[in-house]
Amino acid sequence: MDSALKVNQGVPQPPAINPRAREIIIKKRSRHLDVSACLDGIRNGNIPILAQAITLIESTKEEDRKKARELVSACLPASGNSVRIGITGVPGVGKSTFIEAFGKYITSSGHKLAVLAIDPSSERSKGSILGDKTRMETLSNDPHAFIRPTPSGGSLGGVARKTRETVILCEAAGFDIIFIETVGVGQSETAVHSMTDFFLLLMLAGAGDGLQGIKRGIMEMSDLLVIHKADGNNVEKALQARSLYQGALQLFPPAPSGWTPLALTASSLEETGLEKILETILNYVRLTEENGFFQKKRAEQAVYWMRESIDDYLLSRFYGNPHIKKVLPEMEKKVKEGLTDPFRAASELLKLF
Amino acid sequence: MDSALKVNQGVPQPPAINPRAREIIIKKRSRHLDVSACLDGIRNGNIPILAQAITLIESTKEEDRKKARELVSACLPASGNSVRIGITGVPGVGKSTFIEAFGKYITSSGHKLAVLAIDPSSERSKGSILGDKTRMETLSNDPHAFIRPTPSGGSLGGVARKTRETVILCEAAGFDIIFIETVGVGQSETAVHSMTDFFLLLMLAGAGDGLQGIKRGIMEMSDLLVIHKADGNNVEKALQARSLYQGALQLFPPAPSGWTPLALTASSLEETGLEKILETILNYVRLTEENGFFQKKRAEQAVYWMRESIDDYLLSRFYGNPHIKKVLPEMEKKVKEGLTDPFRAASELLKLF
Repeated sequence: MDSALKVNQGVPQPPAINPRAREIIIKKRSRHLDVSACLDGIRNGNIPILAQAITLIESTKEEDRKKARELVSACLPASGNSVRIGITGVPGVGKSTFIEAFGKYITSSGHKLAVLAIDPSSERSKGSILGDKTRMETLSNDPHAFIRPTPSGGSLGGVARKTRETVILCEAAGFDIIFIETVGVGQSETAVHSMTDFFLLLMLAGAGDGLQGIKRGIMEMSDLLVIHKADGNNVEKALQARSLYQGALQLFPPAPSGWTPLALTASSLEETGLEKILETILNYVRLTEENGFFQKKRAEQAVYWMRESIDDYLLSRFYGNPHIKKVLPEMEKKVKEGLTDPFRAASELLKLF
Repeated sequence: MDSALKVNQGVPQPPAINPRAREIIIKKRSRHLDVSACLDGIRNGNIPILAQAITLIESTKEEDRKKARELVSACLPASGNSVRIGITGVPGVGKSTFIEAFGKYITSSGHKLAVLAIDPSSERSKGSILGDKTRMETLSNDPHAFIRPTPSGGSLGGVARKTRETVILCEAAGFDIIFIETVGVGQSETAVHSMTDFFLLLMLAGAGDGLQGIKRGIMEMSDLLVIHKADGNNVEKALQARSLYQGALQLFPPAPSGWTPLALTASSLEETGLEKILETILNYVRLTEENGFFQKKRAEQAVYWMRESIDDYLLSRFYGNPHIKKVLPEMEKKVKEGLTDPFRAASELLKLF
């Protein structure tokens, strides 16, 4: 844990800036940005500069991409010193209030928190919260928190790359806890799982109800289940659900991390259970740093993203080809209806390409 | 269920052939094979011809591949009328004895059973049973059963394609139940899950022990857990485990199939619990045919395999490139050690290509 969290001390805290003013500054500056000045700014924890740098990462212009690559490489040696936490849960589970409450608890405990999201625009409407930053008003105004919505547009692969590069920048800027949020109903949770150290699944007490539509396999990949909205009349139900899930988690195959997943309860409204959640996460980090899994997983994730990035590039040349784009839906329809076999269809499409 | 299982009646049953004699015939004939004669043979349930045709599918020669593609396309209209069952479980769980016992029960109930496997050679040593066909002696000699080991060599993508094409041929030959076996410790279980209608996970009563090394997420993807070796002194422990797991399964997110996964017990030694397993599978088929999920999933799987096949081809041109093959391990090492960032490494490799 020490090595993951040691950065926090000694990094100058950025001044509190009104978020609206901040955005105006960002828009004005992002067009002309010098890489080494930018690096200095980031290393000094300058939030407007960090925000501009992320805008570079998100840009599709080749000139910006080139600068962005330089900047990410330059930040790399100063990165890695954070705990990266994936947070998922279906719409209605209260993700935004949880991130707001837990985030506040984290910054008040002396940490610096960055909140990122990964759902590409097509999945955003299904309930990703960060498009609607105003729903996290307190955290938006917290000088020790940095909230960045999902970059707009683009494929999951593209969004994932941008988010992962943003993590590196945020770490170089001294953020020692990073949330990556996803709605968990599509493909993005695999991407989030592949770029975080710890995976937290938010749930509700009514078994099933709170999970409608969530992808199978997510529960089993989680390091911590949090039964949310454990307040008012709901407390007893939440505690019951917690105990049921805790039992179920023990039946799962042992995780390669050596960690036994836990179930906890929390209320964002009453701000209860948050301390225990942070403690659990830090326990996980301590355990896995000691047994070497933390470092091993990060190394494997880095290779995974190198390969993903290669694959994404190679495949996008095919799927982005105008001719293929035109023919593909028709071919898919034929395959779906069993009029042609998938492998023949594939080889026909490849011939066209 | 009716549509999935109706093929069985009226298909001529193949003569019982000594398996050793069968293999000699196959080896002799596979070099010169006429597509339309082959199709006739398959449609008549001629096992030696089916086996030869599969050898064509497994061949890497372009001439054979062309014939194989024609044959698969020709068989397509007669395919689809089976229940495709994925069976997974770690080494030691008793997969071979289970497939032998359950397979015998299936053929004695009037079905025709094909048993295939998917683990590529690199994973085979971890416990796939079908390399060792002799361990299923009774089933090997059953005229209503057809056992085909994993094709040797090749990537998972290649093996998966061959297995999926083999399914089509087996269906055209009148096999109405198809097992696809995998060891579940690597990547192959995702492939199996993506080509089967029903996913069965074999387990042992000692929670955890019997699951060591199994991939996280598999339990949650399963439609049926079977607590195996429920015999002798083990019966009570198995029943307890069953009830624990049944409770846990109800806490999982609802499956899009509308099916609630079950836990059952079975003994291959005492041949108990097998009837209930078949009944459960057929109940699943009935439910999902009625609610449309069965057909929907098959259509989605077909599109999945078209895309997988395209991706596999495009990526293999990169990863198979001699220059890339030489440089890749070095680059991976640098990425693992954090000396370069994954996206920069990816773009450098792509430049080399």
